[in-house]
Amino acid sequence: MNEWLKEDERLDYLLAEDLRIIQSPSVFSFSLDAVLLSRFVSVPKRGAVVDLCSGNGAIPLFLSARTKAEIIGVELQPRLYDMACRSIGYNQLEHQINMVLGDVKEVPNTLGVEKYDAVTCNPPYFLAHELSDKNISEYHAIARHELHLTLEEAVHSAGRLLKQGGKAAFVHRPSRLLDIVTAMRANRLEPKRMQLIYPKRGKEANTLLIEGIKDGKPDLKILPPLYVYEDNNEYTEEIRAILYGE
Amino acid sequence: MNEWLKEDERLDYLLAEDLRIIQSPSVFSFSLDAVLLSRFVSVPKRGAVVDLCSGNGAIPLFLSARTKAEIIGVELQPRLYDMACRSIGYNQLEHQINMVLGDVKEVPNTLGVEKYDAVTCNPPYFLAHELSDKNISEYHAIARHELHLTLEEAVHSAGRLLKQGGKAAFVHRPSRLLDIVTAMRANRLEPKRMQLIYPKRGKEANTLLIEGIKDGKPDLKILPPLYVYEDNNEYTEEIRAILYGE
Repeated sequence: MNEWLKEDERLDYLLAEDLRIIQSPSVFSFSLDAVLLSRFVSVPKRGAVVDLCSGNGAIPLFLSARTKAEIIGVELQPRLYDMACRSIGYNQLEHQINMVLGDVKEVPNTLGVEKYDAVTCNPPYFLAHELSDKNISEYHAIARHELHLTLEEAVHSAGRLLKQGGKAAFVHRPSRLLDIVTAMRANRLEPKRMQLIYPKRGKEANTLLIEGIKDGKPDLKILPPLYVYEDNNEYTEEIRAILYGE
Repeated sequence: MNEWLKEDERLDYLLAEDLRIIQSPSVFSFSLDAVLLSRFVSVPKRGAVVDLCSGNGAIPLFLSARTKAEIIGVELQPRLYDMACRSIGYNQLEHQINMVLGDVKEVPNTLGVEKYDAVTCNPPYFLAHELSDKNISEYHAIARHELHLTLEEAVHSAGRLLKQGGKAAFVHRPSRLLDIVTAMRANRLEPKRMQLIYPKRGKEANTLLIEGIKDGKPDLKILPPLYVYEDNNEYTEEIRAILYGE
């Protein structure tokens, strides 16, 4: 067994990037949404970036391939934090990425307010009361449901961390669009770029990417849509390019 | 010259519908946006519908092909109101469509509040201060710029006219998405369906269709996108079907 891995973990390729990530199906695996958010966000060339709700560190790892900026990942769950730290070590990225074990709501107090150039966040998508499956693991429940962090709290922390002119990017479900833009404006994050992800042509959107600028001028642009699957259930060319660099 | 026409007017086909409409390039011609809104809105089978900012009556005429409901069109400009009335007469639709000459802000006081099943509105898109071309005709200036009616005022009137559970549908520019959803929620119109129109594949969206339900539960769906032109600048199959019934 690889010295980097514990229990049921495995070492997966981070797809188009020349990186590896430690995953465990019983605990947490990164999703396509994390890949899409990492690609969508406008990252500064240098400076400092914070990723909130980092899970096993997929977004910090992806971002390290796009920028020379210092990257800080914040994760509440010790087991996921530990997986992220080991993935960073395996990839020898300790000089660029630091993980912080902590609560997103508290983290501006420790990391500092108005200090960062960009913040990314792939928050829990589901409302706490939508947690119906009693068999779901606690790891998955916390990562997916607003048990410890609401959308509004995540946006509030992002707003506090950012410098004026800094960029906050979120991925969420389209049904929460109004909540997210309301929370962004309430926290001085003016929505500027939005992209919708459709599972297939002719279907409703199932994922929303949105980026705001702290104290930006109102002027939202809606980027071309992305489709994930062709009618034959294979990935589209666009998604293959994103995932595998084909 | 046709007895129905004045000056530089012409009698155009209303495309896929078996209807004609009086147009004048120097005064006002309906746009693709009116066609898209007429097709997008959830119309009741019966009951009563109001179209605000009717121009030359394109939306009421289109809607008459989709519903048996009574349709009331509201237009501020006497010249456009007159064109709309004559088009309704030419198509022998006086039993279904009535035009009202008046100010959208005042019209709930005369037509009655909480009485209507659906409201459509293709409002002026541009802010008053964006009126830069001094040579633009007054007709076009009023129809296109928020000189006599702001977006917020249009949404407010739509909210007053509608019954509980009634539907309000708007077409606007994507850059105004946040303003429109904010105004809708402020007027008890919960956004439920949204569709984005892209001029071509790979381009940013240039038109937004959105429908809300009065006192509806929050749950926004984002419909599949529509593309207007193919790469070769011909209409897409979807748009040809909408315009010509092909």
